[in-house]
Amino acid sequence: MNKSTFGRHFTVTTWGESHGKALGAVVDGCPAGLSLSEEDIQKQLDRRKPGQSRYTTARKEGDQVEILSGVFEGRTTGTPISLMVRNMDQRSRDYGNIAYSYRPGHADFTFDSKYGFRDYRGGGRSSGRETLGRVAAGAIALKLLESMGISFCTYTKSIGPVEIQEFHSEEINNNAFYMPDAAAAKKAGEFLEECMKNLDSAGGIIECRIQGVPAGLGTPVFEKLDAVLAQAVMSIGAVKGVEIGEGFHAAEMKGSQDNDGFISDDGVIAKTSNHAGGIMGGISDGSEILVRAAIKPTPSISQPQDTVTDQGENLSLEIHGRHDPVIVPRAVVVVESMCALAIVDALFGNMYARLDKVQEFYKK
Amino acid sequence: MNKSTFGRHFTVTTWGESHGKALGAVVDGCPAGLSLSEEDIQKQLDRRKPGQSRYTTARKEGDQVEILSGVFEGRTTGTPISLMVRNMDQRSRDYGNIAYSYRPGHADFTFDSKYGFRDYRGGGRSSGRETLGRVAAGAIALKLLESMGISFCTYTKSIGPVEIQEFHSEEINNNAFYMPDAAAAKKAGEFLEECMKNLDSAGGIIECRIQGVPAGLGTPVFEKLDAVLAQAVMSIGAVKGVEIGEGFHAAEMKGSQDNDGFISDDGVIAKTSNHAGGIMGGISDGSEILVRAAIKPTPSISQPQDTVTDQGENLSLEIHGRHDPVIVPRAVVVVESMCALAIVDALFGNMYARLDKVQEFYKK
Amino acid sequence: MNKSTFGRHFTVTTWGESHGKALGAVVDGCPAGLSLSEEDIQKQLDRRKPGQSRYTTARKEGDQVEILSGVFEGRTTGTPISLMVRNMDQRSRDYGNIAYSYRPGHADFTFDSKYGFRDYRGGGRSSGRETLGRVAAGAIALKLLESMGISFCTYTKSIGPVEIQEFHSEEINNNAFYMPDAAAAKKAGEFLEECMKNLDSAGGIIECRIQGVPAGLGTPVFEKLDAVLAQAVMSIGAVKGVEIGEGFHAAEMKGSQDNDGFISDDGVIAKTSNHAGGIMGGISDGSEILVRAAIKPTPSISQPQDTVTDQGENLSLEIHGRHDPVIVPRAVVVVESMCALAIVDALFGNMYARLDKVQEFYKK
Amino acid sequence: MNKSTFGRHFTVTTWGESHGKALGAVVDGCPAGLSLSEEDIQKQLDRRKPGQSRYTTARKEGDQVEILSGVFEGRTTGTPISLMVRNMDQRSRDYGNIAYSYRPGHADFTFDSKYGFRDYRGGGRSSGRETLGRVAAGAIALKLLESMGISFCTYTKSIGPVEIQEFHSEEINNNAFYMPDAAAAKKAGEFLEECMKNLDSAGGIIECRIQGVPAGLGTPVFEKLDAVLAQAVMSIGAVKGVEIGEGFHAAEMKGSQDNDGFISDDGVIAKTSNHAGGIMGGISDGSEILVRAAIKPTPSISQPQDTVTDQGENLSLEIHGRHDPVIVPRAVVVVESMCALAIVDALFGNMYARLDKVQEFYKK
Repeated sequence: MNKSTFGRHFTVTTWGESHGKALGAVVDGCPAGLSLSEEDIQKQLDRRKPGQSRYTTARKEGDQVEILSGVFEGRTTGTPISLMVRNMDQRSRDYGNIAYSYRPGHADFTFDSKYGFRDYRGGGRSSGRETLGRVAAGAIALKLLESMGISFCTYTKSIGPVEIQEFHSEEINNNAFYMPDAAAAKKAGEFLEECMKNLDSAGGIIECRIQGVPAGLGTPVFEKLDAVLAQAVMSIGAVKGVEIGEGFHAAEMKGSQDNDGFISDDGVIAKTSNHAGGIMGGISDGSEILVRAAIKPTPSISQPQDTVTDQGENLSLEIHGRHDPVIVPRAVVVVESMCALAIVDALFGNMYARLDKVQEFYKK
Repeated sequence: MNKSTFGRHFTVTTWGESHGKALGAVVDGCPAGLSLSEEDIQKQLDRRKPGQSRYTTARKEGDQVEILSGVFEGRTTGTPISLMVRNMDQRSRDYGNIAYSYRPGHADFTFDSKYGFRDYRGGGRSSGRETLGRVAAGAIALKLLESMGISFCTYTKSIGPVEIQEFHSEEINNNAFYMPDAAAAKKAGEFLEECMKNLDSAGGIIECRIQGVPAGLGTPVFEKLDAVLAQAVMSIGAVKGVEIGEGFHAAEMKGSQDNDGFISDDGVIAKTSNHAGGIMGGISDGSEILVRAAIKPTPSISQPQDTVTDQGENLSLEIHGRHDPVIVPRAVVVVESMCALAIVDALFGNMYARLDKVQEFYKK
Repeated sequence: MNKSTFGRHFTVTTWGESHGKALGAVVDGCPAGLSLSEEDIQKQLDRRKPGQSRYTTARKEGDQVEILSGVFEGRTTGTPISLMVRNMDQRSRDYGNIAYSYRPGHADFTFDSKYGFRDYRGGGRSSGRETLGRVAAGAIALKLLESMGISFCTYTKSIGPVEIQEFHSEEINNNAFYMPDAAAAKKAGEFLEECMKNLDSAGGIIECRIQGVPAGLGTPVFEKLDAVLAQAVMSIGAVKGVEIGEGFHAAEMKGSQDNDGFISDDGVIAKTSNHAGGIMGGISDGSEILVRAAIKPTPSISQPQDTVTDQGENLSLEIHGRHDPVIVPRAVVVVESMCALAIVDALFGNMYARLDKVQEFYKK
Repeated sequence: MNKSTFGRHFTVTTWGESHGKALGAVVDGCPAGLSLSEEDIQKQLDRRKPGQSRYTTARKEGDQVEILSGVFEGRTTGTPISLMVRNMDQRSRDYGNIAYSYRPGHADFTFDSKYGFRDYRGGGRSSGRETLGRVAAGAIALKLLESMGISFCTYTKSIGPVEIQEFHSEEINNNAFYMPDAAAAKKAGEFLEECMKNLDSAGGIIECRIQGVPAGLGTPVFEKLDAVLAQAVMSIGAVKGVEIGEGFHAAEMKGSQDNDGFISDDGVIAKTSNHAGGIMGGISDGSEILVRAAIKPTPSISQPQDTVTDQGENLSLEIHGRHDPVIVPRAVVVVESMCALAIVDALFGNMYARLDKVQEFYKK
C-alpha cells in the first residue's frame, strides 16, 4: 500500500497538515448505493473535537466537512469520495524557538532527518489534526458496516493508573473521558487535575469491541485480520502498543486457560470463551473482536525540557499555549475509525475466497 | 499488499502447507550484488529447527533450503530469488477425529468458515511451518542489513511467569530458550517441566533490538515504521500483542517521564533516553529500535478439551503426538526475520524522500 | 495499485466528476525540496483548456487550481500534495433524454451495468474533465523530471487521415492542433470543417518523445517500462491503441531491419538506430523513448443515433450542445502527463536495484 | 503491484531464469474449490513448447510442471499455488563472445545498465522461458473462467506481411502458426522459408477474442479493463503495440462510424456493432473483448551484426545455435494467458462495486 493510503479494496488516502489550507481524505472503493450526507461524517468529526471539556484544548476548530465528489442525489456512486475540512486559522505568528528546536516526544527531529526541513508551524503532517481525514473516512466505513449489522463500542479503559472497574455502555458518553465507569471517570479527572497542576500530562488505554463481524474475514498469512488491525491502530500517532483479545496477558497463561472451546447447540457452533478476541489464525471467528491500544502521554508539556536546536545547540525548552493534558478521549474515535477501515477492507477481500460463491454471484 | 506478500519494495511471498510437497518463498526486489549462498539461509532456518531440546518437538524436519533462482555466480542478480524446502514426510496416516473436528486455539474452524473446507492433515497454511518461508527470506534481509551496519539482537524475555532479570547477550545462545539470563532460563525449564507434567503449555514474550538503523526510515502516516513492524510481527501465528519502546507501560507514564530529551555534543545530536524505542512520529530516530511480541501458549495440548465436529456434534478431544510445550524459543528467529523484512523495505522506501538526494543519485 | 491511484512510488489519486463540486488529485511520494507553485500547475492545465480554437468547445472552464497541502514556503515537503479545481457551473438543468438513455460511444451503459445507477448529468467520472487531476499531477512530475534533465516533446501526429509529413518542433505551439507541420495542420483544419458540416467527429494519433531518461529504468517482467507506459496511456478515456518505437510496424519488419546495433566511440556506447523506442527488455536504454497513442473520434455527435433507454426502449438520440469535433489536441497534454507520471515512478523504483548504490546512498 | 507480480486480487508472481535451476510462479488469491491437476496446466504449457514445427527451435524443453502447494485432494484450497518447472539443461558451456557482448534487440545492455552485471548464459530473466510461469498461472485463470462460461479464442493474425483473409476457428490448431486461415498459413510458411534462407527472422500480430465476459468489469480511471489488458500484454517480451477493438484504425474513423449503437429486443439490450472491442469507458460491456498485440521479429539472427562488448569495444557479432525464425506462434498462448489473468482479476475486483450485492452476499 502507499505511504498515505490505507487499505486494499476500500482505501483511504489522507492529506493535509496542521497549519496548511485544509486537510482531507479520498475514499476509494466504497460501493455504490450507500446513503451518505455531510451530517453522517460531521457527527463523527465532532466526537474528536477539542474544547469539549477542560481536559481538551479550547482552540476553536470548526472542522466543517465538505463532500466534494462521489455522492449523487444522496447516495455514493462507486467513485472516489473526496472529503475536505478547511483549516480556520492559518495566520502567521511568532513560533519562537519551537521553529528551530526539536520538541521532545514529537516528530520534529525525525522529519528533519528524513526530509531535510519541515513545516515548523506545528506538527505538520504528524499533527493530531491529520486524524481528521481518518475519522471522516472512518465515518463512511462505519455507516457501511452498520448497514450490514456490524457495530462498534469503543471507550477508554484507563487514564494513567486509573482503570475502569465496571462496564456500563450507557455511561460511555456521560463523561469527558468516554469511560464506561462513572467512578473511574471521576478518579481520572482528579488524576488529571494533579497532572495539570504539575505541568505534566498522561496517557491511557483504549478498547474497541466489534460485534456482528461474520466468520471468515482476514487471510492466513501476512494479511491476517489482527495484523492489519495492528498496523491500522499502531499508525495512529501516539499509540505504542496493540493487543488482540488477551494480548500480553496471553503470554502468562497456560494453553488450557487460553484455548477457547467450541460448543454446539443444535448444530449452531459457538465458542465457550473468547480469549482469542474473535480472531483465530488471522481469520475472524464470528465472535466479538477485541482490540486494545496503548496511548502515550501527550508530549507537549509546559515544564522546561532539555533539547537541542536544529543547529545542534543545547537548549531548555518550555512549550506554552494550551495543550491537552491527555489525548486519550479524543483518540477513541480515531481508534474506532481505523478499526472500521480495516474491517470493511477485509469484508470485501473475503468475497472471492470460494469459487462456488463467485459463481453464484455472477449467475444473477 | 497481497495476501501472501509482505513488503512494498523488498517483498516476500510465501507459499506452502505443513503437509504439502514443499514450502517456500519468493523474494523480489533484492538489489543485485549481494553475496548469497544456501548456507547463509540454512543457518537461519536451523535456528527455528525443532528437536533441539526437550521443549521442542522431536519430529525430524530436515528443512534443507534450495535456491532456485535469482543468484548467479554467488551473487544476487536483482531478479526474484525463489527458495524452497521440501517436506520430508507427507505419507498419509489416520488423522482420526482431528480430521473432522475443530481443535481449540487453532484455525480449523475459521478456515472452514472462510474456504468451505480445509487440508485436515495439520495446520495447513496456518501451521508454524509456514514461517520457514519467512525465515528463509529474512535471512536475505538480515545479510543485506548486516552489510550496511544494521544488526539484530533477539531473545526471549519471558516464558510464562518467568521473566529475565539480567541481560547478558553472550548467554542468549547458551540455553534452550534463547534467554539472556542463565538463572531465568533455569527457572523457565522448571516451569515447563511442570507444564508438561500437567499436559499443558506456556507462552512468553520475545524482544527484538535493532541497532544501526539510520534516522529517517518510515513515513508519517499509515506506513509509520512502527505500524509496519506491528503488522509484520502480529502476522506471526501465535502473536497476540506488539509493543514499541515502553509499549503499554507508556500508558501509565507522565509526559515528563516518557519524553526523550535531546543533547548535543559538539553538534552531534543524541537522545538522553529511549522510551520511544527508536521511532518518533513513525520515523526512525537513529537510536536502537525495540519491538516486543507476546506469544500465546501452544494450543495443542493433550488434556481433553471440549469442542465440536465440522458437522456440529459436541466432542471431547485429546490431541496426541508430540507438540512443543512452548513455541517461544522457535519463534525468536521468526520475529527477527519479520522485523528485518520491515526494516529493509523501509530502507529502500526512504531513498526517494529528498529531491537533492535523488538528483545526486542520478548524477553519477 | 488501487482503482483511482496510479504509480507505486510517486502516486497520484484522482477524484471528481464532471458536474460535481470539484475535481482534484492527491500526489503522494513527491520528494521534499521541489520548488512548486500554483502557476507551475496552472500552466499545464491551460494547455488542455477548451475554447482555445473553433475545434474545441467554447464552454467556460475556469479551472483554477489550488494547492491545499504538501507545499511550505514554496517547496514540496515530502507529504501528500492535494490539488483541487472547483467546477464553476453545477446548476441543474434539463438533461432531457440524455439522463435516461445510453449515448453510443460513451460509458453510460457500462456505468449502469457496474454500479446500478449513474450521475446522469454528463460523463461523471468518465468525463474528460477527470483528466484535470492527471494533468495537475503530471505538472509536478514534469517539473521534477525537468530538474533532472529529462524533457518531453508531445504533439499530434495525425487528425483523421491527415498525417504530418515534416517535423518542426517550434511549429507545435503555432497551430490549434499541436502539429509540428504547418501544412498538415492546415489540412487537418479543412478536414475538421468538413466533419463539423456533417455533424461528425474525428480522432487522431499523438506521439510523445522523452529525452534524457537514464538507462536502467523499468523492470524485466510485469513492470516493464513499456508495459507501465501502455497502462498509463491506455487509461486515458479515448485511447484505443498504444505503441512503443516501431509499434505495429515492427510486426512487418525483419529482424535484420528492426534490431538496433550498438557502436562505441571511445568507450561511449550508443545505438546505431532506435527502432525499439528507447526500451529494451522493459528497461530504458538511454536513448529517446517514443510512445504513440491512438485516439478514437469524439463520441458526442449531433447526428441522430440508434440507442436505447435505461428501461430498454429503442430510441433515436440527437446530442445537442457544443462538443469538440476532435479531442486530440486537448489530449496531447494528458498523454504527456501520464508518460511523465510513469517515468518519475520508474526513476524512484530503480534506486534500490544495486546493492553498491544503496550502500553508497546511506554512507553519506 | 510489485515488480514480478501481476494482479491485485488474483495475483501471479513469476520467478526464474532461462539457465537457472528452475522457473515457476506463485498464484495467490485463487478461490477455494477449483478442480485442478498438473495435467490442466501441462496442457497449456505444451502449447508454447518449442520443437513442434520447423519454425520453432528444436531444443528439448521437457517443461514438466509440478504443483507444490495450494491443492488438496484435487481442489484448490484458497492458499497460494506454487508451480515449478525444472530446467533440464543447465550444463556450463562456452558462451563465447555472447557472454561479454551486447546482442542487438536483446536486453543485455539494459540489464548491465540497471544491475551492473548479468547472467550471461542466455536471456536470463528476460528470456522467453520466463513466460512458462505466466502460462502455468494462466492455465489456472483459464480453467476458472471456463467454469464461469468465459472462453478465449487466440490466434495469429499475421506473420510478417502475410495476413489472414478468412476466419475458420477450427483451422487454428491445424497449422504450425495457429492461423485460422489455411491459405495464409501456407503463405506464411513460404515467407519464413525465405527468411531462414536469408538468416533473418519475422514478427507478426496476435489476436485474442474473449467471450462471455459479464458487463461491469474494470474501473473508470487508471484500472480501466483495457488499460490493465494493455499492461498485461505489453509486459510480454517482444510486444511493441497493443490495440483494443478498432485500435489504431479508430484514429482514422469518424464518430458516426466508430460509435456502437444500442438496440433493445424485448428489453434485452445489445450493441449493433463492436468497434469498441467490448470495453466502454474502461468497463466491459458484455460483448466480445478483442485485444491485438504486435510482436517484433525474433532478435536472434545469424547474420553478422554491429555491436559492442561490455568493455566498449566494437564487434561484429554472429549468433549461432538454433533460434525460432518467428516466435509469434509460441506467443499465442502467452497473450491468451496474460489476458486471462487480467480478466479474472477484474472479475473479483467487481464484486464489491454495489452495496446491495455486498449485503446480499453476506446475508447468506
